[in-house]
Amino acid sequence: MSTDPRPIGVFDSGIGGLSVVKHCARMLPHERFVYLGDTARVPYGNKSAETVQTYSAQCAAFLLSHDVKMIIVACNTASALALDMLRASVWVPVVGMIEPAARSAAATTSNGHIGVIGTRATIASDSYARAITHAAGERRIDVHSRPCPLFVPLVEEGWLDSPATRLIAEEYLRPLVANGIDTLVLGCTHYPLLMPVLSDMLPGVTLIDCGSCAAEEARTLLGVEQTPPTAATQIDLYVTDHTPAFTMLARQFLGMPIDEPVRVSVDNLQLPSVR
Amino acid sequence: MSTDPRPIGVFDSGIGGLSVVKHCARMLPHERFVYLGDTARVPYGNKSAETVQTYSAQCAAFLLSHDVKMIIVACNTASALALDMLRASVWVPVVGMIEPAARSAAATTSNGHIGVIGTRATIASDSYARAITHAAGERRIDVHSRPCPLFVPLVEEGWLDSPATRLIAEEYLRPLVANGIDTLVLGCTHYPLLMPVLSDMLPGVTLIDCGSCAAEEARTLLGVEQTPPTAATQIDLYVTDHTPAFTMLARQFLGMPIDEPVRVSVDNLQLPSVR
Repeated sequence: MSTDPRPIGVFDSGIGGLSVVKHCARMLPHERFVYLGDTARVPYGNKSAETVQTYSAQCAAFLLSHDVKMIIVACNTASALALDMLRASVWVPVVGMIEPAARSAAATTSNGHIGVIGTRATIASDSYARAITHAAGERRIDVHSRPCPLFVPLVEEGWLDSPATRLIAEEYLRPLVANGIDTLVLGCTHYPLLMPVLSDMLPGVTLIDCGSCAAEEARTLLGVEQTPPTAATQIDLYVTDHTPAFTMLARQFLGMPIDEPVRVSVDNLQLPSVR
Repeated sequence: MSTDPRPIGVFDSGIGGLSVVKHCARMLPHERFVYLGDTARVPYGNKSAETVQTYSAQCAAFLLSHDVKMIIVACNTASALALDMLRASVWVPVVGMIEPAARSAAATTSNGHIGVIGTRATIASDSYARAITHAAGERRIDVHSRPCPLFVPLVEEGWLDSPATRLIAEEYLRPLVANGIDTLVLGCTHYPLLMPVLSDMLPGVTLIDCGSCAAEEARTLLGVEQTPPTAATQIDLYVTDHTPAFTMLARQFLGMPIDEPVRVSVDNLQLPSVR
């Protein structure tokens, strides 16, 4: 256990980030977590960089007001577009989704062909390609990226393995398969719920769950040894809107029952050093 | 042409409302329009009633600051959840999407079985069923409703007639077909773009486009005769976020080329009589 008793702050555009908290709770069972889901403005994945940065700064300001010792940006879009801004503005370590998954993918691939799937904004930012190339050092790695905007609504509809889901996944993954990828980064916190169907459709391809990689990074940064999981990990849940489907979906992402979240407003918060 | 030179205000959670403006421009070609798309917070369809009311009040306040003579709520979710609040708060006529389409559906059905499709929030509000029952008077009409949350992302992905779209539509429409509907209300401003595939899948079913019905209602309220369309209808476009896909999608919804929108912030606006 870390000697610093302050909680770890986690934010996401909505509830998908709870799939990251699931891994954190497993790897850091004795830590306390404060989670903020910006459900009043979800999703971030189709919005502009400027808007995603403004929203991310407000989420981070909320977490800092809870005296967190670290911020995990449990949203790939926010990690792609706002991580540098956050790191320049806050005084605690900031863990994003992209670098840990990029390092894991670079270490995993045998044939040097890595696929990346995510929202339009994440893929357009090219953040994964840059991070993977950086992690690969002098080794040549080809990154094949594809936005998959229908995966989030399919997961939220609960269609985790319907014929339509398979048809859409085939359409999205066809060019990546044609490129001969042996590793696929699931670059959105909703996608791990599609892992069973994606594994089935991509035999021989290793799937990288960015939440698991980020939780490992957080553990390393805190200098905490892995201990056996406990059922008692404390997660304080905040949302910006009480959306009707929250509880059902949150349980799916977190993999355990969950308390009712507290609704908060973050619209007018600011980071001290951000305009 | 109306003798009142002030513009007509139109707002939507995003760009779908431009499918309503398309009909307005056709029926009221000599009017001027001010359109606000709340693209920084889109979509409204999965959010809570309270949040949709707050956002709708801010959009209406923005339009009133442009001295509009009428507000068209070109979003079914906002019409379902915020119309009463808006009508109680503003001093100009407010046209929603639901009542005009409900009256048209009640007048259209022969067998008394009407289907309604929309977002989760619209369907959960039961607004269409109530409005159709009211419009039907003493005649018995059965309303069969179904939320279709994947239709909006399918339209935004441009998959207007893909195999996946047909598979998903079949799944959504199966219970409505089994109920023997002869009329289907497209209760979301994105859905008219799916009209070709829906018509093809539902032979003998009349599709009701809520935007066309609302434009007709606006014309009646303004006391304007229908005149031949002109290519010169003026539409001033505002958005709360410059989202990457705006221009491409806007052109599809509006059916004509479109100017670059002006970005504005509405977060801190309030209606005078709303807390």
